[in-house]
Amino acid sequence: MDDVTPRLERALHGIIADRVDAFGALGPEAPQFARIAADFVLEGGKRLRPQFAYWGWRSVAPPGAAGEDAMLDAACALELLHASALAHDDLIDASDSRRGRPATHILFAEMAAERGWPGDATRFGAAGAILVGDVLLSWADSTFAAAQPSFTPEAAAAAREMFDAVHREVMVGQYLDVLEQARGEFSVEAAQRVVRLKTAKYTVERPLLIGAASAGAPAATLSALSRYGIAVGEAFQLRDDLLGVFGDPAMTGKPAGDDLREGKRTVLVALAMRDADATGRSLLRSGLGDAAMDEDAIDALRAVLIGSGAAAAVEDMIGERLAEGLRAIADGADGGLLRPDAARALVALARAAAERDA
Amino acid sequence: MDDVTPRLERALHGIIADRVDAFGALGPEAPQFARIAADFVLEGGKRLRPQFAYWGWRSVAPPGAAGEDAMLDAACALELLHASALAHDDLIDASDSRRGRPATHILFAEMAAERGWPGDATRFGAAGAILVGDVLLSWADSTFAAAQPSFTPEAAAAAREMFDAVHREVMVGQYLDVLEQARGEFSVEAAQRVVRLKTAKYTVERPLLIGAASAGAPAATLSALSRYGIAVGEAFQLRDDLLGVFGDPAMTGKPAGDDLREGKRTVLVALAMRDADATGRSLLRSGLGDAAMDEDAIDALRAVLIGSGAAAAVEDMIGERLAEGLRAIADGADGGLLRPDAARALVALARAAAERDA
Repeated sequence: MDDVTPRLERALHGIIADRVDAFGALGPEAPQFARIAADFVLEGGKRLRPQFAYWGWRSVAPPGAAGEDAMLDAACALELLHASALAHDDLIDASDSRRGRPATHILFAEMAAERGWPGDATRFGAAGAILVGDVLLSWADSTFAAAQPSFTPEAAAAAREMFDAVHREVMVGQYLDVLEQARGEFSVEAAQRVVRLKTAKYTVERPLLIGAASAGAPAATLSALSRYGIAVGEAFQLRDDLLGVFGDPAMTGKPAGDDLREGKRTVLVALAMRDADATGRSLLRSGLGDAAMDEDAIDALRAVLIGSGAAAAVEDMIGERLAEGLRAIADGADGGLLRPDAARALVALARAAAERDA
Repeated sequence: MDDVTPRLERALHGIIADRVDAFGALGPEAPQFARIAADFVLEGGKRLRPQFAYWGWRSVAPPGAAGEDAMLDAACALELLHASALAHDDLIDASDSRRGRPATHILFAEMAAERGWPGDATRFGAAGAILVGDVLLSWADSTFAAAQPSFTPEAAAAAREMFDAVHREVMVGQYLDVLEQARGEFSVEAAQRVVRLKTAKYTVERPLLIGAASAGAPAATLSALSRYGIAVGEAFQLRDDLLGVFGDPAMTGKPAGDDLREGKRTVLVALAMRDADATGRSLLRSGLGDAAMDEDAIDALRAVLIGSGAAAAVEDMIGERLAEGLRAIADGADGGLLRPDAARALVALARAAAERDA
């Protein structure tokens, strides 16, 4: 599998450099503001979405086909969209760190506090994160739009439809997530819908389809990629749920048990709420979302997640979904719907998504 | 002057109905969420930006020219962008009402409180407003993108460049605004830059240029419209500053003196901070941004704004800018750069922007 990440990284740097430059004309404060948005994208992230977009494209296009560079740019738009969602999500969820660094709202709040500004530092932090997310979302859209003239009008229209859909899905997924939180509910069904909208479609399926549609892929290829994308995307998110509770902070860049302190409504937690005994459930209810929990309290919740069978059930689900994703690729490759090099890359990406430790 | 607002309103309703429909597929909570975003746009607003875009187009295109309907759609994208910015600004500025209705974050918070949900209603309100703003921003971009194939590639590229610029300008303008607030500063220079970025370019100049560029306007027409746009946009915002302090709540839809309770860094306030005597300045410093100020306290600040000469200076500035805008149109029409019907409409719009009471 040829590694596309260095090319994606170069494309992303170029796109962002142009946009930071354009801010230069808007007064002395603008470049620093743009820089914070830029660094948020550039200093971390696995570039998973652009990789899936690239391999969606390569499912039907040979290496070096016309439009490949524009396709890499369009793929970077997905990374910018993702960064926008993260900046806003961190504020919404009051998550203070991201990839081992302060979250955007914390960065702005620290700036205000360090310089001793008289205004409310927390409010300034929230404003900064909202605006950085807005800037990143508008960069995503301008990047995507700039790439479109390189594709055929039909391919561009199909890709744009999916690009619009992914916006809709990730925003509704996040809304559903905060709604469940506000309602104090822990339904397994809702948690699964959030996974599907916020991760499976958004991280894997839509990027693949955007890439493939840009190359003019036929409907049968799109549907093979869709089957793979939903399954692998769910496996990816379920792995994330486990890492958010049991992961090694040195690997994940997040404090241990952070998801529990934030009270995240994951499938893992929803299953435990459903299947734990009364003591376990009441431990979960009182602990989840308590930002002040110490290590012992976190360990007690971990024990409930294991004892209720939820952790093992999630591992099983990951295994099933990985298998389903691999079957989709095998069927697609057998049917001549996917180029062999892309099929190999998608198998490797599926394993990396489901079996990672960071 | 033919009134384009009913056509704009119809176009906007159609665009939004399509987008609300698309949310329907994403689960039972999605339509209500989309509806809140939709209502926020549809239930108010003067449609000023789309009107300027239309008259920018008509500066060079005769009525009914090819592409006019697509142009109206692209113009509606500006209204969606504006609604997005308002939803986020109201949250950032902690403004509780907008156009006589609860602000978006208040709407969501009230929903949570009324239904007795156990989660934190204020946090849910903030999350809802952030996500509604994101949805509206993505609707703006998808609307603009969908219109582009109806213009020549060169015209579409020129219009897109300006559409990207207006995103950048309004976001930097808002950042500069919160930065001044955090720093506790009241510089006239910064307040004027905020006006230019957040209003003059965004409300008048860029919409005009986007409309004109979509019709393939020559550089001389663009520069006449730019001169008019900056001047009239500044007049519009300076009028807004006066209305935010001295306006009639029944007309403006905002509580009397709301800008003072919010501590807005307007040119009006910055001038008074510079020119008032020590007593006046200390009254301003202690009152501005105090959400609990009563009517007497508001009246005392109003007296400082008048006594320092700031209010009269702002009226003078409005008059000068209106005159400059009208000269730009007269020169442009004399030079054959603007069609006569558009020139007439732009004169009427300039007066409406500078002399309104709501």
